[in-house]
Amino acid sequence: MQGKFISFEGPDGAGKTSVLKEIDIKLTKQLGDQLLLTREPGGNPISESIRHIILDKANTQMDARTEALLYAAARRQHLVEQVIPALDAGKVVLSDRYVDSSIAYQGAGRKIGAKEVWQMNQFATDGLEPDLTIYLDIEPQEGIQRIKQHRQNEINRLDVEQLAFHQRVRSAYLKLLEQYPGRIKLIDASQPFDEVVAAVQATIVRKYPDLF
Amino acid sequence: MQGKFISFEGPDGAGKTSVLKEIDIKLTKQLGDQLLLTREPGGNPISESIRHIILDKANTQMDARTEALLYAAARRQHLVEQVIPALDAGKVVLSDRYVDSSIAYQGAGRKIGAKEVWQMNQFATDGLEPDLTIYLDIEPQEGIQRIKQHRQNEINRLDVEQLAFHQRVRSAYLKLLEQYPGRIKLIDASQPFDEVVAAVQATIVRKYPDLF
Repeated sequence: MQGKFISFEGPDGAGKTSVLKEIDIKLTKQLGDQLLLTREPGGNPISESIRHIILDKANTQMDARTEALLYAAARRQHLVEQVIPALDAGKVVLSDRYVDSSIAYQGAGRKIGAKEVWQMNQFATDGLEPDLTIYLDIEPQEGIQRIKQHRQNEINRLDVEQLAFHQRVRSAYLKLLEQYPGRIKLIDASQPFDEVVAAVQATIVRKYPDLF
Repeated sequence: MQGKFISFEGPDGAGKTSVLKEIDIKLTKQLGDQLLLTREPGGNPISESIRHIILDKANTQMDARTEALLYAAARRQHLVEQVIPALDAGKVVLSDRYVDSSIAYQGAGRKIGAKEVWQMNQFATDGLEPDLTIYLDIEPQEGIQRIKQHRQNEINRLDVEQLAFHQRVRSAYLKLLEQYPGRIKLIDASQPFDEVVAAVQATIVRKYPDLF
């Protein structure tokens, strides 16, 4: 594998998707079709079907471990169909969320346990880790406030969880940061948007001086 | 948990489903609604939706690990919605296949690795093992022959795999038998049907002298 695998993580409301859009625009200028911006389930039919089961409002009975296994199954198929072929072709892959999200949301948020979720995801990824993870950090209260202001029509199942859930999610991310200081880099997402984008760009350049 | 959890395992063509039907009839006479005969996905909507994705003929691109994760997700939901409540209610649960099937079919048959599949399934079951596993043993060639004779309209994706696949499946079952001699009991399924049923019944009675 010759490509570069960069994942973007963070609690809800950190501005991850908007930041990724900016980084994508900037990097596309240089890389063209050598860049892949992707997000699980990533558009393949199998992963989309799995996502449909997870998000189906009728499935209120879904067990937390069932949900974690389904996310891992969608992740696996997305890896095999989209991410790995792009990396093999030498592309730069920007992934909106990856395993760290499952550890934070299912492991800590839903209290399954970080280690259990990490280990089960090792099966899904066969050990494939990002080369670099951009973690956009935000206080849960500020993140929730942002979602309420900007995405009122988009409030999904996760956004309506209580504050305690979001606090567990953030703590898990901060713990992952301690565990993987080489891979995960924290960006303060409470800064003005342009400064967040500039900080992300600088972090990527520190790892890959030829990009941008 | 006060119930008794008995799983039935075996390669395709071992006669598992027919034997289970007989045992179910015999045990129902004694136990009535204190018996649950079940089979993953077990009729709950979430597991049925997952099964639909696995069996969809359009999904020829499905990766072996994706498939194993989906089986584990359906298993988890079936456990939570059907098996565990029945065991908590003190019932006898007869399960047509369980984790050993994934180890044999996905781990060995599809070559993911028995240990990997076992470990991932520990996440799904949270360590819940059957109290007793009836393993119906048959030579792969005889099993395939039986399927061809009796279920010509039912030949599914698994049945059309090559002989080598079925040999790997059987070897994996025999290895599990060595690893768990207390839990797994082998029955020679090449015997006449009535003798197989009698041997299964005797094996269950040895473990639970009050049943039958």
